[in-house]
Order: sequence, then structure tokens, then C-alpha cells
Amino acid sequence: MTMTQPRRLHALTRAESLSLLSSVSMGRLVFTHLALPAIRPVNHIVHGDQVIIRTYLGTAIASAVGGNPGTVVAYEADLIDPDEHLGWSVIIIGRASRVTDADEAGRYRDRLHPWVAGGTDDVIAIQADMVDGFRLTQSPA
Amino acid sequence: MTMTQPRRLHALTRAESLSLLSSVSMGRLVFTHLALPAIRPVNHIVHGDQVIIRTYLGTAIASAVGGNPGTVVAYEADLIDPDEHLGWSVIIIGRASRVTDADEAGRYRDRLHPWVAGGTDDVIAIQADMVDGFRLTQSPA
Repeated sequence: MTMTQPRRLHALTRAESLSLLSSVSMGRLVFTHLALPAIRPVNHIVHGDQVIIRTYLGTAIASAVGGNPGTVVAYEADLIDPDEHLGWSVIIIGRASRVTDADEAGRYRDRLHPWVAGGTDDVIAIQADMVDGFRLTQSPA
Repeated sequence: MTMTQPRRLHALTRAESLSLLSSVSMGRLVFTHLALPAIRPVNHIVHGDQVIIRTYLGTAIASAVGGNPGTVVAYEADLIDPDEHLGWSVIIIGRASRVTDADEAGRYRDRLHPWVAGGTDDVIAIQADMVDGFRLTQSPA
């Protein structure tokens, strides 16, 4: 492993964070399932103040957010070089709820291609109530 | 965006999952902070049935796990191609606690290089009580 200099952590603004989040297609949904912390990688799109995902990776997500609209979840995406330790991470926290409008859900499905055939296929919108982002940059020597 | 065929999801064994986890240096710690779901990218090493991390990314992790040894957290790592949707994800769930033995903590610090200068520097061990892994493979056409 390369010995790297420690990095500096710079906070990102909400706008910078959402812009970085929309620049990648994958992240991780964090929620509570059976009273335990749960996390699933999914792909996403950013639409205004919402992060939109599809729940094709299993029913745990659907049961966690589907039965209780407004459940608070976290969503994280990052792009950090494992050797250089340079990059960014964005975390949003907010209420997740199923997109029930068929036309709206259909439009999102057109843009969110499933990873896995079959399974549940709900479209979930996460409201970006709290947005927290940081960038790891090189420290001056 | 490339239109890809849906993938198949194959469950991995505990041994396969821990082996994949140890093949990468970065993952994401999932915990509860101020009653909200929280997630932080960190780097890790796998030591037997434990995942070892350092908490240099802030005090939230330390306060979440440090004040209450045995707090249940999740830890996730993945390597999924965002275009091809092929790859794997491993999730462990287990009790996290601070490594209090100075020699042991020192040995882990030698192998876990900080991303960020300063801040807290606790070494945390997460017991892999539950291990869940999957691999996304190409469906037959």
C-alpha cells in the first residue's frame, strides 16, 4: 500500500453536493430493517431536491419505506480513490416514500435500468432534507 | 447510458464474502447518530471475523460506537461497474467496539493509513455476526 500524506476535508455546499451526486449513477441506500442497520447499493437519479431509486434489489427496501411513507433514510455516494485517498462523498438524509403516480413512476423507470431481473419494482423518492458533502484534497506538504 | 440486460443475483457464502471484503481497502460504515441513519466511507482491514476501521473521519462514529461497546452497526463494500452492472457487494452486521489494547490498536494503525490529518483516531473492531454477500452476473440471453 502506498503511504500517502493525510488529506484535508473540505465541506461542500448543498448545491455542490447535489451536483456531484447527480454526476454518478450509483450509491447506497441506508435504512432500518428489522431494527438493524441495513444498506443496499442501488442506482439513482437526482431530480431537483429528490433522489430517485428503484427497489429491484429486494423487498427489504420496499418493506422498510413502502409501508410507512415518510420513513427517514440516508443515501450516500462517493468517488474516492482507494490508493490516493482523494475524492468526495455526499450523504443525504430525508424521508423516503413510494412514487405512486403511474406516469411519474414510469418516467423514472425509463431512466433507471434494473440491475436484476424480477423482484419488486417500486420507485422510491428520497427527499434531500439534509445534505452533507465533503471533498478530500491534498494537504500542502 | 448503455441499455444493459438485467443481471442475476447470486448469494455468496460467508467465506467468499469475507474474502471479497478483504480484497478491497474501502467500505462504508452504517450506524445510528442522533437517532438518524448515518453512513461514512472509511478504509478497513479484515482480521479473522472482524472488520477493523479507524474513525479519523469525525467524532460521529466514535460517539456512536465508543460510548456503548456492542452497538450494532453495518459495514458495506462493493465493486459494481456502474455501466455494466456486474460486480459484488458484501454487507456485514455486528457489534462495534473500540480496540482498547494499545499494542493491538497500534498494529492496526500501522496498516490503516489515515485519510485526514487530525481529529479522533480510535480503532474500531466490528464483529462479523451476520455476513451477506451477492454477486451480479450476466443473465443468459
